[in-house]
Amino acid sequence: MIKKWIENEAGNLVDDIVKINDSELLEHKLSGFGMKNKVIEIIKEINACFFPSIYESHAIDEEYIEIYVKKRINSIAVKLNGIIREVFVNMCHDDKNNMNVCDHCKNKADAITIKFMNSLGKIRRILSTDIVAAYNGDPAAKSLEEILLSYPCIEAITIQRVAHELFELNVPFIPRIMTEYAHSQTGIDIHPGAKIGKYFFIDHATGVVIGETCVIGNNVKLYQGVTLGAKSFELDIDGNPIKGIKRHPNIEDNVVIYAGATILGGDTTIGEGSIIGGNVWLTKSVPKFSMVYNNTPDFDIKRMKERNS
Amino acid sequence: MIKKWIENEAGNLVDDIVKINDSELLEHKLSGFGMKNKVIEIIKEINACFFPSIYESHAIDEEYIEIYVKKRINSIAVKLNGIIREVFVNMCHDDKNNMNVCDHCKNKADAITIKFMNSLGKIRRILSTDIVAAYNGDPAAKSLEEILLSYPCIEAITIQRVAHELFELNVPFIPRIMTEYAHSQTGIDIHPGAKIGKYFFIDHATGVVIGETCVIGNNVKLYQGVTLGAKSFELDIDGNPIKGIKRHPNIEDNVVIYAGATILGGDTTIGEGSIIGGNVWLTKSVPKFSMVYNNTPDFDIKRMKERNS
Amino acid sequence: MIKKWIENEAGNLVDDIVKINDSELLEHKLSGFGMKNKVIEIIKEINACFFPSIYESHAIDEEYIEIYVKKRINSIAVKLNGIIREVFVNMCHDDKNNMNVCDHCKNKADAITIKFMNSLGKIRRILSTDIVAAYNGDPAAKSLEEILLSYPCIEAITIQRVAHELFELNVPFIPRIMTEYAHSQTGIDIHPGAKIGKYFFIDHATGVVIGETCVIGNNVKLYQGVTLGAKSFELDIDGNPIKGIKRHPNIEDNVVIYAGATILGGDTTIGEGSIIGGNVWLTKSVPKFSMVYNNTPDFDIKRMKERNS
Repeated sequence: MIKKWIENEAGNLVDDIVKINDSELLEHKLSGFGMKNKVIEIIKEINACFFPSIYESHAIDEEYIEIYVKKRINSIAVKLNGIIREVFVNMCHDDKNNMNVCDHCKNKADAITIKFMNSLGKIRRILSTDIVAAYNGDPAAKSLEEILLSYPCIEAITIQRVAHELFELNVPFIPRIMTEYAHSQTGIDIHPGAKIGKYFFIDHATGVVIGETCVIGNNVKLYQGVTLGAKSFELDIDGNPIKGIKRHPNIEDNVVIYAGATILGGDTTIGEGSIIGGNVWLTKSVPKFSMVYNNTPDFDIKRMKERNS
Repeated sequence: MIKKWIENEAGNLVDDIVKINDSELLEHKLSGFGMKNKVIEIIKEINACFFPSIYESHAIDEEYIEIYVKKRINSIAVKLNGIIREVFVNMCHDDKNNMNVCDHCKNKADAITIKFMNSLGKIRRILSTDIVAAYNGDPAAKSLEEILLSYPCIEAITIQRVAHELFELNVPFIPRIMTEYAHSQTGIDIHPGAKIGKYFFIDHATGVVIGETCVIGNNVKLYQGVTLGAKSFELDIDGNPIKGIKRHPNIEDNVVIYAGATILGGDTTIGEGSIIGGNVWLTKSVPKFSMVYNNTPDFDIKRMKERNS
Repeated sequence: MIKKWIENEAGNLVDDIVKINDSELLEHKLSGFGMKNKVIEIIKEINACFFPSIYESHAIDEEYIEIYVKKRINSIAVKLNGIIREVFVNMCHDDKNNMNVCDHCKNKADAITIKFMNSLGKIRRILSTDIVAAYNGDPAAKSLEEILLSYPCIEAITIQRVAHELFELNVPFIPRIMTEYAHSQTGIDIHPGAKIGKYFFIDHATGVVIGETCVIGNNVKLYQGVTLGAKSFELDIDGNPIKGIKRHPNIEDNVVIYAGATILGGDTTIGEGSIIGGNVWLTKSVPKFSMVYNNTPDFDIKRMKERNS
């Protein structure tokens, strides 16, 4: 029966799906080319380059680390350059028509790749501060190696700091694919646009959302389920959302935000050294060194009859 | 030492685990056969069939799309048919005994496969509306391609719409394996039984739970952490939960539900055009065009002494 | 351009990253050796050993189950022994210098491996109770097989019970890598240190956090987003967190905790048979058979003007 269906009916379904794809992507050139998987592969290579003793598959001797790091760096540069070129070429409509790589796209991609590669040392140095913040921030952490081997916040912030660099260099698609990979692995959703200071730590990870235009200072600590989000957003005269406005809060240095707290709005600033309690819902600024907490736990307790189960 | 343990003691452990498995599955025939991995493979093929320009591994020319889609569709039909046949045969106890595929199971599996395959065009068309809803619903979205490449809600709703079709065709196991794969990838837990209208969007994704008997209208938008769940459930006279009752809410057209809101109960209906604020806890219906929000933010702010860290 | 960068500039980046790694791991010997992937492989083998009819790739006949289980058990024993040896040797500084496996490390690793292997029958037997708890706890569950094939709580609790055994045997790194793998797959974050009784069920899974020093009785049921966490923690005189204090709550037998509830503190005990309502925030003990719930739903409803969208 299935064989018959394939012979006689599958053709209609093929036509149907091709037609829908055509109509949908009319204005958008095809830019997939397995990009998602390639970007994820690069992110894994960057991890292995940053933390070779953790991610390489042998217990490598100190004297060989250099060889491993070098191999990874060369591979990252070549692969990333390839993807960025493909993205620019696919977006460059004229060029698409003759299928040759235009020199402008190629040069732009190369320049961006080199700027990005030269930023990796700086990123790695900031990640050292994040590892220390995790160790100091969690009594359950027994060593720095344990943090590297098993703390999801390190994976999430590594990827976000890398993606943010590409975001600042105006690379389309790739940064967001990176942070969504982190989101899928860790439950932490940080937009590549967010600016985040040193010594950043998120404990327990799942459910954290940090929006595109957030600005976060140094030494900030979040717990699971914290949202740093937008209040609502403006529509343009056609009823479409206006893109690119500052919509997410500012968190100053040394702030702690406990589990499930929600802080919203582009003009909301949490002043330096403040502590925001669990489940607090905040849509306006608080001054430096504020302690914000839900007042009297508002629940009732009833005694039930004893029950067996 | 380990070699000795394997020679002398491992046997007891083997016996023990085999015995536990035997006792547990006495009434249930074996229906695993690597089904989970096979189902996940099919879901990935359906994605590639629906969005070839995103998921295929080359930047494919418009003229070749048809070939790719055709290959995927044939593969999906054959593989899915194989799994559905195996499920029905494994559940058909009589047949199990002589290990031949009974004609009834085979024909039923074939008929269901064909009905399902013929629904894929309709599903793909609805997914076009979800992509538009995501673009209109998030100011951070820069293009439709970005949404396809990096928005977890698209992966979750694609899989749920596919799984729902199989659920409606009374295919056991497979729909739920599909939606739990989506849950694992995206943090969005939508039961395959839920009925969901067009233009559906979930922003930030993580922690959303939508129960089996939910009915959701067109143009509904949710944020992270929203639960559309059950209040509590009836037990039968043996103390077991009664299955198959309407336990989850109805959400009418054009409703927006903000982060962390919880809406419970099978006779709870959120009227058309309503807005439910963040963290609201609702267990009864609200009329059309309601705006429901937590009143006065109930927290206190204290000034702390300045502290260094 | 990229070729030139690799020839002329990549060397500086290599030096930079090697230097950072050196300085960071000065006190810590290298203990990565691809450990993370190896540990994940072992966890998958344990799953296949526990539930062969679900995880093996053929619809296996009852008479062959024994062969499959035996193969898995031998493989688990050998692989785990290898990793535990590597961890102990890498942590044994003296030994590291001459690169020979010291007999003490080897014997300790062997003894631990055997103790662990001998506990697998006990763990599997407890998992049978968890499967029953899931079936009884969710009206949407249609069969035990459906639970094994698609309930994330089963994956999470299987891994945690295995990791807890290794945690109790003082194996470093490995238990936490296991539970973080479960966290990544299911959104459930249970520390390997937590002690959990029989018949444990978590519905919908995502966002649950259970801390290191939690003690949970029999027949406890949680919903998504529940936190069993720490209040705050003591710092030692150098300002570092004091490790190893009881910081997380006790949950007695037959307790149900609804979605989003937060229970904090090492001296907080939820008495037997209690029900904790959704979103409740509790930082002190409640007696047996308490029902704790947020009082009067505190929200307002406004009627909006009808709007089109």
